[in-house]
Amino acid sequence: MRPMTTVDANPLRQGLEQERVPDPSCLVIFGASGDLTQRKLIPGLYMLAHDGLLPQGQTIVGIARQDMTDEQFRASMRAACDEHARTRPVDDAIWESFARGLFYVSGEFTDPAAYTRLKARLEEFDRTRGTAGRRIYYLAVPPQFFEKIAELLGKENMVCDPEKGGPYTRVIIEKPFGHDLASARELNQVAVSTFRERQVFRIDHYLGKETVQNLLVLRFANGIFEPFWNRQYIDHVQFTVAESIGVEKRGNYFETAGIARDIIQNHMLQLVSLVAMEPPVAFEANAVRDEKVKVLRALRPIEEAVRGQYAEGSVMGERAAAYREEANVDPNSRVETYAAIKVFLDNWRWAGVPFYVRAGKRLPKRVTDISIHFRPAPHPLFSRLGLRMQPNVLAIRIQPDEGISLRFDSKLPGPTVRTAPVTMEFRYATSFGAEPPEAYERLLLETMLGDATLFARRDEIETAWSWLDPLLHRWANDPAPPPFYEAGTWGPEEANVLIEKDGRKWRRP
Amino acid sequence: MRPMTTVDANPLRQGLEQERVPDPSCLVIFGASGDLTQRKLIPGLYMLAHDGLLPQGQTIVGIARQDMTDEQFRASMRAACDEHARTRPVDDAIWESFARGLFYVSGEFTDPAAYTRLKARLEEFDRTRGTAGRRIYYLAVPPQFFEKIAELLGKENMVCDPEKGGPYTRVIIEKPFGHDLASARELNQVAVSTFRERQVFRIDHYLGKETVQNLLVLRFANGIFEPFWNRQYIDHVQFTVAESIGVEKRGNYFETAGIARDIIQNHMLQLVSLVAMEPPVAFEANAVRDEKVKVLRALRPIEEAVRGQYAEGSVMGERAAAYREEANVDPNSRVETYAAIKVFLDNWRWAGVPFYVRAGKRLPKRVTDISIHFRPAPHPLFSRLGLRMQPNVLAIRIQPDEGISLRFDSKLPGPTVRTAPVTMEFRYATSFGAEPPEAYERLLLETMLGDATLFARRDEIETAWSWLDPLLHRWANDPAPPPFYEAGTWGPEEANVLIEKDGRKWRRP
Repeated sequence: MRPMTTVDANPLRQGLEQERVPDPSCLVIFGASGDLTQRKLIPGLYMLAHDGLLPQGQTIVGIARQDMTDEQFRASMRAACDEHARTRPVDDAIWESFARGLFYVSGEFTDPAAYTRLKARLEEFDRTRGTAGRRIYYLAVPPQFFEKIAELLGKENMVCDPEKGGPYTRVIIEKPFGHDLASARELNQVAVSTFRERQVFRIDHYLGKETVQNLLVLRFANGIFEPFWNRQYIDHVQFTVAESIGVEKRGNYFETAGIARDIIQNHMLQLVSLVAMEPPVAFEANAVRDEKVKVLRALRPIEEAVRGQYAEGSVMGERAAAYREEANVDPNSRVETYAAIKVFLDNWRWAGVPFYVRAGKRLPKRVTDISIHFRPAPHPLFSRLGLRMQPNVLAIRIQPDEGISLRFDSKLPGPTVRTAPVTMEFRYATSFGAEPPEAYERLLLETMLGDATLFARRDEIETAWSWLDPLLHRWANDPAPPPFYEAGTWGPEEANVLIEKDGRKWRRP
Repeated sequence: MRPMTTVDANPLRQGLEQERVPDPSCLVIFGASGDLTQRKLIPGLYMLAHDGLLPQGQTIVGIARQDMTDEQFRASMRAACDEHARTRPVDDAIWESFARGLFYVSGEFTDPAAYTRLKARLEEFDRTRGTAGRRIYYLAVPPQFFEKIAELLGKENMVCDPEKGGPYTRVIIEKPFGHDLASARELNQVAVSTFRERQVFRIDHYLGKETVQNLLVLRFANGIFEPFWNRQYIDHVQFTVAESIGVEKRGNYFETAGIARDIIQNHMLQLVSLVAMEPPVAFEANAVRDEKVKVLRALRPIEEAVRGQYAEGSVMGERAAAYREEANVDPNSRVETYAAIKVFLDNWRWAGVPFYVRAGKRLPKRVTDISIHFRPAPHPLFSRLGLRMQPNVLAIRIQPDEGISLRFDSKLPGPTVRTAPVTMEFRYATSFGAEPPEAYERLLLETMLGDATLFARRDEIETAWSWLDPLLHRWANDPAPPPFYEAGTWGPEEANVLIEKDGRKWRRP
């Protein structure tokens, strides 16, 4: 199978020339007129073509309510790529070739006739484009449509059971994977009524990020990290997902969610799992996810947590409204826009090591950062000399400006032994020269290849919810509003107390 | 006691403002007209004054054969500082103050009358400058003079026995500390006939280097290095001291020495000790040196070693003569200008871990480098994906361009899991902005303070010789010349064989 296009790659990225080009399939996007399709999916697919990673014959079919011809759909997607593709301007030759595989079907997701039309076209592509019955359904729609779509796909015989052989059918689901444990179970039940678990690809786009994947490489391709990656040497770990923006146009959704559901239940628990997991037997979907689930099962019920809601303030020099003043937000809302949780993992490796996890909107900047704080050297050899030792910190910056740094004590130049913390640094961009690919590119490709390593499994989702549910319940039943924090600050004072009473401090990432 | 001068320090070096200013003493330099005095000692002492580290009243007395007045000596030392001081131009005000403490006595080292004159002047300074009987004798003379100088200092009652109280007397000795075990013992015997061991400060200027001292800080002020600093995680260690120059004007001396005596017996075994030692109980002279001696005692008799001698070639674009063509070198010389030794330490921590040590002249560049090569991750998790893992390397650059770097595997950006070695770096100069002080500044100050941590103890010297002696003997009795290597290359092919037959490679530092 040859790539659809061959483009001169950045020579720094020659490692990418590769055999992992999938077989061509029909990728059906439900919700083709939506934001996600325009910002992420089609630009991501175009980039795969650009990088020579899409197979010849790969077929992409958008489906949505409005009437459009294939040509109109292509023009609209071209405009989306012109605005959102990672490499711009869009290359006309590559686009032409890519667009020949783009099609559109109009119809309501709830209308069986739409599925009949869709099925007919897909079967036509099997003949004309060599997709051979391979199907990927991308549900870029709100979760309330999942059930109906799954049901109608089943009724129209558009799903192949892998137990019975034949070409594959896969389905990609976007978060939110439920709103609590009960609704997540319900959604998962819907999915497995039509699909088997191994056909379901739940996207947590954090897992598609280069630096998140690099966590596994860092830990398990190197011999030097594991020896001190445990309670004997690590004092605590901090996870920060800070956003400088507020809820923007998502007030409606956010009012039903809050930051714990929006960020912590999914993205942050993924990060916690990757940092804390035992080495898997193999780098392969179930081996990796088995280890991640083991971490989630070790989560101790939450004892200490802090929430907050942003009040008026100023972020990066601009006035920022209070959350309660945002569009589609209840002026008396008690929804949290900040949360910090002290997490314990009750297992052999991490017993007694707190993981401090915090996420917030309207913080001073946008940054996702993990920092491993080591215990000090056991014998303070230099402290007689009046030196205050700084514990070592290994910091992993997920975004922006991806990289890794290690803080350690070094001797200050001069005739006395004085030490000062210095930093060894590695920055992704400087070392590799190239912009890392977008998370969606990776995840779309993995789905085509059938590798679910980077997708959330049903038990991960449900275990995460079962841990978070009691806290959400407690907050929901608390008639008091969350503590307020000024927009543009690092959250409410209570969050500082949470960590400082343990004799520790939030790192300023 | 206030510093003699107060200079506005570089604010980056504020850590240096300190209480460790010694009491004033008379520092007597035997060999005041020599190269070392002009290039290192007086410029180093001036820099201490410049940095506010010399006490008021500190007195420096040069003694040498030729006739000179104090004024002439000062003028000559000013010229030396103009050429060699670390911070130039020399500051006139500081110099004036410093030079008021500079004096000269002329006399033969073998003439008792010279000691009588010297003694009279020193006693005068005790009254006029507050040196209160404190004496430091710096023997910047060839070792054959040690015995006579020690004897005459004793006869003239110029040495205080610390067991009897009273002001201190210290003596600083420069290498070579003997030519083999027998001569080293003899020299040490001479020293202790007049001085007690704790009065003797043997200078190995490598120990005064910032980055060498930093080895101890790195290992023992940080909690993260010790966990993997042992045979379980380290595959092997490499030590390289490469010089691009040849023997230059030192042919006479080098013909009697060779690189193993000149570099390996002292400097390189110091580096080996600091890398390999157990954590000392305290950062204090005998605690540190006890641990270093334990390393030397663990040295297994040498089984594998390679020597070489440079032939004609080209170094950094310039033609370089063969060693045998150099001035004052025997045209049939069998002296080695390159040596590589495979070193084993028979102790609990390092059993089975080879330390490959090499030193050479006329190599492609000047560099001193230590590299810790780690074992690969125990389970090749990513190797199924066809990835070749690169073992981790922690490299410590002693000179030039001092710094530390850690090589580890990272994920290559892109849609497949491919890894590539990347490097985290810390560079001393970039981080601290300032030129590190010269080794001699530090070592002179330490002597004044009476801290012998950074000086070689008698048993270190003798243990090192007892290890090297059999090899030197073997080489001396080998009628064949050493293998030749072209000047400007990394030594003879035999040195590559030494390491490559073990499945390893010399790192290109």
